Amino acid sequence: MWASPFVMRVKLALGFKGLSYEDVEEDLFGGKSELLLQSNPVHKKVPVLLHNGKPVCESQIIVQYIEEAFPSCPGPSLLPTNPYERAIARFWGAYIDDKLLASFLQSARGKTEEEKAEGQKLTAVAVENMEAAFKEISKGKPFFGGDTVGYLDVTLGALVSWVQAAEKLYGLRLFDATRSPLLNAWAERFAALDTAKAVLADVDKLVEYAKHRQAAAAAASSN
Amino acid sequence: MWASPFVMRVKLALGFKGLSYEDVEEDLFGGKSELLLQSNPVHKKVPVLLHNGKPVCESQIIVQYIEEAFPSCPGPSLLPTNPYERAIARFWGAYIDDKLLASFLQSARGKTEEEKAEGQKLTAVAVENMEAAFKEISKGKPFFGGDTVGYLDVTLGALVSWVQAAEKLYGLRLFDATRSPLLNAWAERFAALDTAKAVLADVDKLVEYAKHRQAAAAAASSN
Repeated sequence: MWASPFVMRVKLALGFKGLSYEDVEEDLFGGKSELLLQSNPVHKKVPVLLHNGKPVCESQIIVQYIEEAFPSCPGPSLLPTNPYERAIARFWGAYIDDKLLASFLQSARGKTEEEKAEGQKLTAVAVENMEAAFKEISKGKPFFGGDTVGYLDVTLGALVSWVQAAEKLYGLRLFDATRSPLLNAWAERFAALDTAKAVLADVDKLVEYAKHRQAAAAAASSN
Repeated sequence: MWASPFVMRVKLALGFKGLSYEDVEEDLFGGKSELLLQSNPVHKKVPVLLHNGKPVCESQIIVQYIEEAFPSCPGPSLLPTNPYERAIARFWGAYIDDKLLASFLQSARGKTEEEKAEGQKLTAVAVENMEAAFKEISKGKPFFGGDTVGYLDVTLGALVSWVQAAEKLYGLRLFDATRSPLLNAWAERFAALDTAKAVLADVDKLVEYAKHRQAAAAAASSN
């Protein structure tokens, strides 16, 4: 499912690790495939990584699986070897999905103006926390992972093209030079990497996709 | 914070691993301590594990940290060594908090009768999935971890005394011999372990605590 940031997350991890894979596109508009329903019967969601015939689900769990299942692959280690630093990476990984992304989605798609305003406030707090986390974790180096990309670069980096699309769709900017100069520069640096360029979806295509989905949802709810 | 199931989760992990620790009680009614606010400035929540002066937050992340930071401690390995089995453990660990616990809480504390009824339906699905997961993961052995307790025993086991308290408080039973015979038997087996007996809070004390909290919340909202 090319437009899913969670799918992009897995592709980024595979790409940075130097692993090759077959991309099985899921047409969510056309109904979910039997393969998806069998592979992820609990959540019925993409992404699913099929490896040796066994399915692994949930993007952040898949990234950790990739790290652990292919210890001798050419790419850099995504998770730090130090247990404390691993815990910090997992902590902010959860924060990115549960707080940063959730509040940003609420600011864009809240049901009422109040919900959207509340979402904007929560987003501001989340961005501030994430900016401080980047400063502390990267220690002046270009990425969360230091000189090379790591777990949090993959986790947050997967959202970069949607962040750019959201600006065009809703006029909302997640990272900017004023409130989060470090993350703003990081996002540009990340998006310029070859693997990111190969994986992250085209922003205009995402904008078109989002409009198509919104129109389909509106048509469905008026039936 | 003795009544928190998430704190119990960490104590269970430390107990099963045979690690000793100092228990610093947090009086949430009396306001959060400076130590908590400094140690977990992002979520301001218990539990926090302080190790070598550094804080680790979020119960499931702490359990993984304990597993990774003390490789030579006497207790059994909580996470499997096989990467696929680790991914499965993480998948169901997330499921326990995000789906099973969340829907059970909704069935008990939903704002309207409709919300509660919806919570009961979601709980039934979650219990069914969890029952099937136990069957598949335990492969006929007594615990999710096999012959000894593992990550999911700790993660789900931490909820057992609250599950019993919820039955007294709300008349809701999460596991029973009819809809989830395997988990029902597992919960009894788990609660009978020495470490579980030492860590899991007394059910009547939890019931009293919950009533006290509800009364305090009602008094605060009527002011």
